[in-house]
Amino acid sequence: MSTIRVGIIMGSQSDLPVMKDAANVLKELGVEFELTIVSAHRTPERLMGYAQSAKGKGLKAIIAGAGGAAHLPGMVASMTSLPVIGVPVKSSNSIDGWDSVLSILQMPGGVPVATVALDGAKNAGILAAQIVGAFDEKVGERLDQYKEEMKQKVLDSASNVEELGYEKVLSNK
Amino acid sequence: MSTIRVGIIMGSQSDLPVMKDAANVLKELGVEFELTIVSAHRTPERLMGYAQSAKGKGLKAIIAGAGGAAHLPGMVASMTSLPVIGVPVKSSNSIDGWDSVLSILQMPGGVPVATVALDGAKNAGILAAQIVGAFDEKVGERLDQYKEEMKQKVLDSASNVEELGYEKVLSNK
Amino acid sequence: MSTIRVGIIMGSQSDLPVMKDAANVLKELGVEFELTIVSAHRTPERLMGYAQSAKGKGLKAIIAGAGGAAHLPGMVASMTSLPVIGVPVKSSNSIDGWDSVLSILQMPGGVPVATVALDGAKNAGILAAQIVGAFDEKVGERLDQYKEEMKQKVLDSASNVEELGYEKVLSNK
Amino acid sequence: MSTIRVGIIMGSQSDLPVMKDAANVLKELGVEFELTIVSAHRTPERLMGYAQSAKGKGLKAIIAGAGGAAHLPGMVASMTSLPVIGVPVKSSNSIDGWDSVLSILQMPGGVPVATVALDGAKNAGILAAQIVGAFDEKVGERLDQYKEEMKQKVLDSASNVEELGYEKVLSNK
Amino acid sequence: MSTIRVGIIMGSQSDLPVMKDAANVLKELGVEFELTIVSAHRTPERLMGYAQSAKGKGLKAIIAGAGGAAHLPGMVASMTSLPVIGVPVKSSNSIDGWDSVLSILQMPGGVPVATVALDGAKNAGILAAQIVGAFDEKVGERLDQYKEEMKQKVLDSASNVEELGYEKVLSNK
Amino acid sequence: MSTIRVGIIMGSQSDLPVMKDAANVLKELGVEFELTIVSAHRTPERLMGYAQSAKGKGLKAIIAGAGGAAHLPGMVASMTSLPVIGVPVKSSNSIDGWDSVLSILQMPGGVPVATVALDGAKNAGILAAQIVGAFDEKVGERLDQYKEEMKQKVLDSASNVEELGYEKVLSNK
Amino acid sequence: MSTIRVGIIMGSQSDLPVMKDAANVLKELGVEFELTIVSAHRTPERLMGYAQSAKGKGLKAIIAGAGGAAHLPGMVASMTSLPVIGVPVKSSNSIDGWDSVLSILQMPGGVPVATVALDGAKNAGILAAQIVGAFDEKVGERLDQYKEEMKQKVLDSASNVEELGYEKVLSNK
Amino acid sequence: MSTIRVGIIMGSQSDLPVMKDAANVLKELGVEFELTIVSAHRTPERLMGYAQSAKGKGLKAIIAGAGGAAHLPGMVASMTSLPVIGVPVKSSNSIDGWDSVLSILQMPGGVPVATVALDGAKNAGILAAQIVGAFDEKVGERLDQYKEEMKQKVLDSASNVEELGYEKVLSNK
Repeated sequence: MSTIRVGIIMGSQSDLPVMKDAANVLKELGVEFELTIVSAHRTPERLMGYAQSAKGKGLKAIIAGAGGAAHLPGMVASMTSLPVIGVPVKSSNSIDGWDSVLSILQMPGGVPVATVALDGAKNAGILAAQIVGAFDEKVGERLDQYKEEMKQKVLDSASNVEELGYEKVLSNK
Repeated sequence: MSTIRVGIIMGSQSDLPVMKDAANVLKELGVEFELTIVSAHRTPERLMGYAQSAKGKGLKAIIAGAGGAAHLPGMVASMTSLPVIGVPVKSSNSIDGWDSVLSILQMPGGVPVATVALDGAKNAGILAAQIVGAFDEKVGERLDQYKEEMKQKVLDSASNVEELGYEKVLSNK
Repeated sequence: MSTIRVGIIMGSQSDLPVMKDAANVLKELGVEFELTIVSAHRTPERLMGYAQSAKGKGLKAIIAGAGGAAHLPGMVASMTSLPVIGVPVKSSNSIDGWDSVLSILQMPGGVPVATVALDGAKNAGILAAQIVGAFDEKVGERLDQYKEEMKQKVLDSASNVEELGYEKVLSNK
Repeated sequence: MSTIRVGIIMGSQSDLPVMKDAANVLKELGVEFELTIVSAHRTPERLMGYAQSAKGKGLKAIIAGAGGAAHLPGMVASMTSLPVIGVPVKSSNSIDGWDSVLSILQMPGGVPVATVALDGAKNAGILAAQIVGAFDEKVGERLDQYKEEMKQKVLDSASNVEELGYEKVLSNK
Repeated sequence: MSTIRVGIIMGSQSDLPVMKDAANVLKELGVEFELTIVSAHRTPERLMGYAQSAKGKGLKAIIAGAGGAAHLPGMVASMTSLPVIGVPVKSSNSIDGWDSVLSILQMPGGVPVATVALDGAKNAGILAAQIVGAFDEKVGERLDQYKEEMKQKVLDSASNVEELGYEKVLSNK
Repeated sequence: MSTIRVGIIMGSQSDLPVMKDAANVLKELGVEFELTIVSAHRTPERLMGYAQSAKGKGLKAIIAGAGGAAHLPGMVASMTSLPVIGVPVKSSNSIDGWDSVLSILQMPGGVPVATVALDGAKNAGILAAQIVGAFDEKVGERLDQYKEEMKQKVLDSASNVEELGYEKVLSNK
Repeated sequence: MSTIRVGIIMGSQSDLPVMKDAANVLKELGVEFELTIVSAHRTPERLMGYAQSAKGKGLKAIIAGAGGAAHLPGMVASMTSLPVIGVPVKSSNSIDGWDSVLSILQMPGGVPVATVALDGAKNAGILAAQIVGAFDEKVGERLDQYKEEMKQKVLDSASNVEELGYEKVLSNK
Repeated sequence: MSTIRVGIIMGSQSDLPVMKDAANVLKELGVEFELTIVSAHRTPERLMGYAQSAKGKGLKAIIAGAGGAAHLPGMVASMTSLPVIGVPVKSSNSIDGWDSVLSILQMPGGVPVATVALDGAKNAGILAAQIVGAFDEKVGERLDQYKEEMKQKVLDSASNVEELGYEKVLSNK
């Protein structure tokens, strides 16, 4: 069986500039993934094929990003019992992102989609890693370390502001 | 070939109290229809079967109603080139209906859904009849007559208010 | 009788950069159309004339686009029993498009407008073609082919991403 | 010429429980009015007739109330140069009133509608009286007196709360 | 008594690029006006003075524009029985204009503000002229002529599009 | 000088069922207050008088509640340099409370209103007590104790649920 | 180590009628869980203790529900690298649920919360089971069976409507 | 004890361009403050430490700014009985600022946050000064003077517009 544990799909290549963040953070956290394009509205059979084969391929979570009337995450979730993470993408034809958010988030009882923030592909990647990390100690440790590094960056910027003063920090920009 | 020209589907039996209005108005306008339940999230294969066989069965339009993250109309539209009319249903788990409206309306380029007002199943029925009526003179005439009757009802209520005075009309209620 | 089957109207010439997409896709699908400007608020008599003569001219559907308090689609629908397709235009004086969307979508019982996505003129054109195509086999076939081509484009971009890898695809841009 | 100076119209008899407040306050302020039903979507010719004859009849302002995709006020305004006051009605099929508000308020440049609050028919009546009162001293004086009475009621309730204490006022209810 | 019949005020000089449209259209329609700056929150006494002296100065209507939590129009209306026209300005610190719109529109019973569209200062000017024109025949005629010119412009652009074709019109830009 | 340290005002007696919570919690925390009715739109002079005399009377904070286009808190803040706490009230004529919230919250630079949650009069009272308590040790201690009691109630309900099990807790209701 | 694999927490006992659905579905799917009350705002230390000990106790996922300004899910997520599932609860003081949804969903980069629909506690339970089921075959099988049962119910209601006709189904209610 | 009376914190250095306005106005008003970075989600222990030591250090108010799902102000308020002023920051990943506003404003009963306008850091600074100024006469006087200067600026711009005329003022820009 493949060592790929997370599938990343998106409705269109135009979602890639947002969705790449999921891929990048999974790489950083050492979780193998595959990434491709599956459109709910233009390739519904491909969608069905992808969703139904995901578990058998050994995937542990699927990240699906889409914009506007975003049906991809929910439709994948309707055809697999793997956890599906939805990324609402603020596409160009979106009404300020509300359409993407609501059509991913408001799934009916029985078919959850784990929704992250608008354009929150990075968090989708981390969430997928957390799912893997809950059962794989090494990934769990990398996540703890990632948290530690985020904390350290805040502490550094805090020290910086306290030492230099906020005005110098702003003018240094 | 069957004489049924409009298909009415909905995501759940709980949508029936709203969606029955589409059926009733089609009956009134003399357009034959079929009505059943198809869930995008619970019976995706059934959805695919329904959408892909609709044209061959002789349907001229499909009315699809759903609430919350409402994917049924858009997913049907992804699998047929018949006109699909979407009815956003204000289901109990909806955020004031915005989720239903946006997840039906905001379809991507290439895959339209003809969206009507929130809970506007009656208008979905009329729109389906208008599609048929654009090519079938008899249905077209019934639509003209229906318009005439609506107009007459307004004129009657106007006369009523003008003659009785608004206060009497209100107290007669 | 003319062979023109779809009428495209809009409230102002400033809507043309959006509404041209309806015209272009109808051309691509081989459905003849006419296109002009009719303002509900500035030329109400012209609106009435247009709506009332549409059926007699042989039109099968009317596409009407407008922004802000967008009354054109609904007022046309009040004066014809042809199917009317409304395109909410995000004009410069719009509140994020919500005004255009709601004043087209939320029509009262009896007078439907088939509403498409904000600035979704392309989908309005396809929907008009679908209405024609439900009764005209040639148009129906062109729509099936159009769907096939959309699918093929997604499959190509999927292959591209899978073969090159997402990072190369992004850096190629 | 008639002494009627304000016309009150509404899209449907179901708007009367809201719109009666405009009539009542005009009565209270001694401004004569007429009240009837005109539907933009069901009786467009009647709408046109009403709007175009209003000025000739001696009306000084028109109050128009409607709900949902509320086109009545704007369409009246498109056919008269009298001031038109729009009342967004929160009808049963409305999305929390937003549709009524936006489709009345967001009129394009050149065709204003003086919009009041959701279900604000009373204020529409007062506004019509203010328009008359700006040129008719007697009406102006009644408006000043009306303002004075409103003020007195607040002062009375303030005295009441200050003397009795808020807890007694609440328990007296 | 002065011949000035409309007062235009705004909360800040930064509202001038929007509010100048009210002044320009009044000039075009031959209605004399005055224009100045009155801030509800920074000069409350000046606000009170302006509102209370307006009627005595012979003003027939006051146009008040403001952004964000826009209290100027409502507070003026609380201190005069002249008609007050409110212009919601989409200022830089506004939440997409919703704050300006709602804090002007949603006045309590007894104190109307005639609200126009977001940034709709031009319409505020026309509405003020309509109020004057309901009683002053010359202004009424200029308004009718203004309507006629708007209509003619639409008819011209319609002819243009019909003769040249939409593609040429777009490429001429 | 009086020992009253907080003033509670509201636009109308109908706001009292909400605003009483501010009074009750101040009583509980031992901070003396006065409570009365002041309407921005119906008694603007009274508003001015109240705001301008507040500091001289020894008040340390003013709590102002209002609904709809809620101008009371902001107008008080324009006439005093005391901290003003605004309570958006979801009155019957409100659009889901958004109007109250935005017309209190979105004050322009220079004139802050400390806004609390919709109908959050209890928190307004606590906030006023916190302002007093920052300088008055006794009040500060009562606030710490209040926090402690809230915590204890949560711990008790947690123990209850953990011991009885959630099903028994629900059936005990 | 305990066999409890999912922790369910909520901000207040008043959230229990919503949150019990998560517990019930986990029971149905054979996934052991613990349930208690932890308030971010009233018991911050308890929150910290719960979050930091969760991984060590063997939990694989935490479900956290809260309403209004709902900080519980995000704050738990800030202190553990386990997957955290957030349930926005439409509490009585909520603005139509938007506050709960946005304050759970819109987490910053680095700290994801897997958000489900408003009041979607049942889906939170299923999502937690899916996380466990991705690694535990028995749970995975129960999830597949659960999906199958949902599908069967839809098929049954479809047969019912098709056989009886929609009118009989409605009148049987 | 230190003379620092206000603490300014923010979730990230990227909030500094907004939050500096709080610091600048406090400087202008002669109120000493400290400023640093504390992240609720990345440094929860630091948050706890900051909040719990604030009162002991002599602070009288804490200003906390954050964007998106903004938990910092509410979590600080959960751990101190000092008044906490929340600044919703319209960060890049925000949905038009609504998430920041609602997740700060809608705090549950018992734990208030004094919320100011979106990006309203300047007003947060003034509000903090008002809290100090209610008890410190010198600061109170500076606030009165600040109000006077704001008023003078409006009066100057009013004179300017009245003297030059609005057209010259606009063309001078």
